[in-house]
Amino acid sequence: MTTRTITVELGDRSYPIVIGSGLLGGGFDLAEHLTGDDCLIVSNTTVAPLYLDRLKANLGGASVDSINLPDGEAFKTIETASSILDKLVSSKANRDTTVIALGGGVVGDITGFAAACYMRGVAFIQVPTTLLAQVDSSVGGKTGVNHPQGKNMIGAFHQPRIVLIDTDTLSTLPERELKAGLAEVIKHGAIADLEFLVWLEENMPALIAKDADALAHAVRRCCEIKAAVVGEDEREAGRRAILNFGHTFGHAIEHCQGYGEWLHGEAVAAGMVMAAELSGISGSEVDRLRNLIIAAGLPTNPPAIGSQAMIDAMGMDKKVLQNKLRFALLDGLGRAIVTSDYDESQLQQVLEAVD
Amino acid sequence: MTTRTITVELGDRSYPIVIGSGLLGGGFDLAEHLTGDDCLIVSNTTVAPLYLDRLKANLGGASVDSINLPDGEAFKTIETASSILDKLVSSKANRDTTVIALGGGVVGDITGFAAACYMRGVAFIQVPTTLLAQVDSSVGGKTGVNHPQGKNMIGAFHQPRIVLIDTDTLSTLPERELKAGLAEVIKHGAIADLEFLVWLEENMPALIAKDADALAHAVRRCCEIKAAVVGEDEREAGRRAILNFGHTFGHAIEHCQGYGEWLHGEAVAAGMVMAAELSGISGSEVDRLRNLIIAAGLPTNPPAIGSQAMIDAMGMDKKVLQNKLRFALLDGLGRAIVTSDYDESQLQQVLEAVD
Repeated sequence: MTTRTITVELGDRSYPIVIGSGLLGGGFDLAEHLTGDDCLIVSNTTVAPLYLDRLKANLGGASVDSINLPDGEAFKTIETASSILDKLVSSKANRDTTVIALGGGVVGDITGFAAACYMRGVAFIQVPTTLLAQVDSSVGGKTGVNHPQGKNMIGAFHQPRIVLIDTDTLSTLPERELKAGLAEVIKHGAIADLEFLVWLEENMPALIAKDADALAHAVRRCCEIKAAVVGEDEREAGRRAILNFGHTFGHAIEHCQGYGEWLHGEAVAAGMVMAAELSGISGSEVDRLRNLIIAAGLPTNPPAIGSQAMIDAMGMDKKVLQNKLRFALLDGLGRAIVTSDYDESQLQQVLEAVD
Repeated sequence: MTTRTITVELGDRSYPIVIGSGLLGGGFDLAEHLTGDDCLIVSNTTVAPLYLDRLKANLGGASVDSINLPDGEAFKTIETASSILDKLVSSKANRDTTVIALGGGVVGDITGFAAACYMRGVAFIQVPTTLLAQVDSSVGGKTGVNHPQGKNMIGAFHQPRIVLIDTDTLSTLPERELKAGLAEVIKHGAIADLEFLVWLEENMPALIAKDADALAHAVRRCCEIKAAVVGEDEREAGRRAILNFGHTFGHAIEHCQGYGEWLHGEAVAAGMVMAAELSGISGSEVDRLRNLIIAAGLPTNPPAIGSQAMIDAMGMDKKVLQNKLRFALLDGLGRAIVTSDYDESQLQQVLEAVD
């Protein structure tokens, strides 16, 4: 496969997403994207043994320091972000230091937030190694940590300088995490591209089998879609919220279960079916989405967490505006809208699924 | 005195600074500046008993919640910021909640940082009640907390929606804090306005005596100067750093002493004399600045903290670029520049003052 570059157009905060095979291990000069001569790589105890040395080979003569976080959503806390800040302070990092996130969505979110806060903002680079991070969380500048009472309640918009995606890293990704990432892949098709959704229906077996070309195509198309949406509405004043399709329900599932029970992508998978049912699209369209999610090996029914607990959790969700819920819903497969104009009785019915 | 409005021009982040007498207690409609219907007032245990109820009278029918922080620079920590975030989460604050800082620079800095981080940024309003906050820290969007190893190391640029300055609040300000605020007043004259510096030389006794008209004039002029500098360079890419005149040394003094020993303004006062000496301006100009600082009842000599400790502390200062110190220095009284082109032997000599 050839290396492809997609640009997120945000004026003076524009940046490239570079996607290819063999980019880590020296196949891409990342040193020239550093602000100064030194950088801190933030990874975790699972990813670092696999890819830290390979990433260092991309950094030429730069002064490289590193820190490894514990692995898992349960550690996506302000305390973990503080540990990165402590490391930056103790190593006397300055405004020209670049912080590099090497890992999945959790590493990227925490690291981006720490970079946003250190000296009121230093440069950061995303090197996502999971499918979920490559197709979604590494692009768009949303960074943050969870609060014990709500997901991503604490954070910042802080765009990376570059997103470097070596699709070879997916070869070591555990199957469950691959599938969780496929939830966000399906989401991109569902909200913005029916043609891509058709391609996914045809190629889901290849994706599950980690076919390199199929994965690379999926990563590219998702990044194109996300880059376009983010370029239109960086701070989610409006349309960007379509990317939250399935997430209002998904976040509530994660919150009620306790983080770390279901993976984020699993919760989003079940959440997308709920959101599709709330959308008022035809039953055959809902079925088509459901079948694609089943084909990806993902759950389509939420766990029995209780509708009241879920409503409470959604009251805490950050997509609440003026105490009215705003949902990303489907106008049809491949077309999402953001609206608070939903059928409340339909919402009740959807929520009964968790009782 | 009449109410005066100064605008900080930052495109879609522009905001007014409203300065006057009798504004708290209902003299100004702040409710119309809230994003939604509810707000959280963050104050401290010293200021709240004096002004919280009066501020509530400005908020009409809005739903008002409040939290009081412990008083003092020692509490300007990530933990205190977290306590505000906890309060926002537990009260189910949403994206339309407005956070209002009522107090001095510490309250404003912590509160602004919490507002910047909550749900990746909610609106905030500054109601500064100390001279230092009114003339400096409430304007310009610098927010943050200290790290045990460095001042303001953790933070965000987050502009307020409005700064409401009731100069009557200065009547209850302890004398030592008034004088500390005068350090930043003098700074504005020294870096940008010789005419204002002359006015200060003539009116320092009136300011010390809390003459309302004199204080109001000083607050207005400082806000005009700061608004212009911030409007030119919001994120301190260049010229805004002139506002750090005296602060590189001042921060090092505070750091070496431990926060809470000298007030920020006291450290800046001594730091300004050191910076003036490093500037290479004439001895008579340095003397003129020193005499003005003495007239304000502020220290002109740094404490004996040791030059090595101070150098170490400055190595940690966020004004370090590429491991070279950048200083805000005077080109003459009333004209500051940002430069790393200073006389190193002169720096050595200036630092010997702390041995």
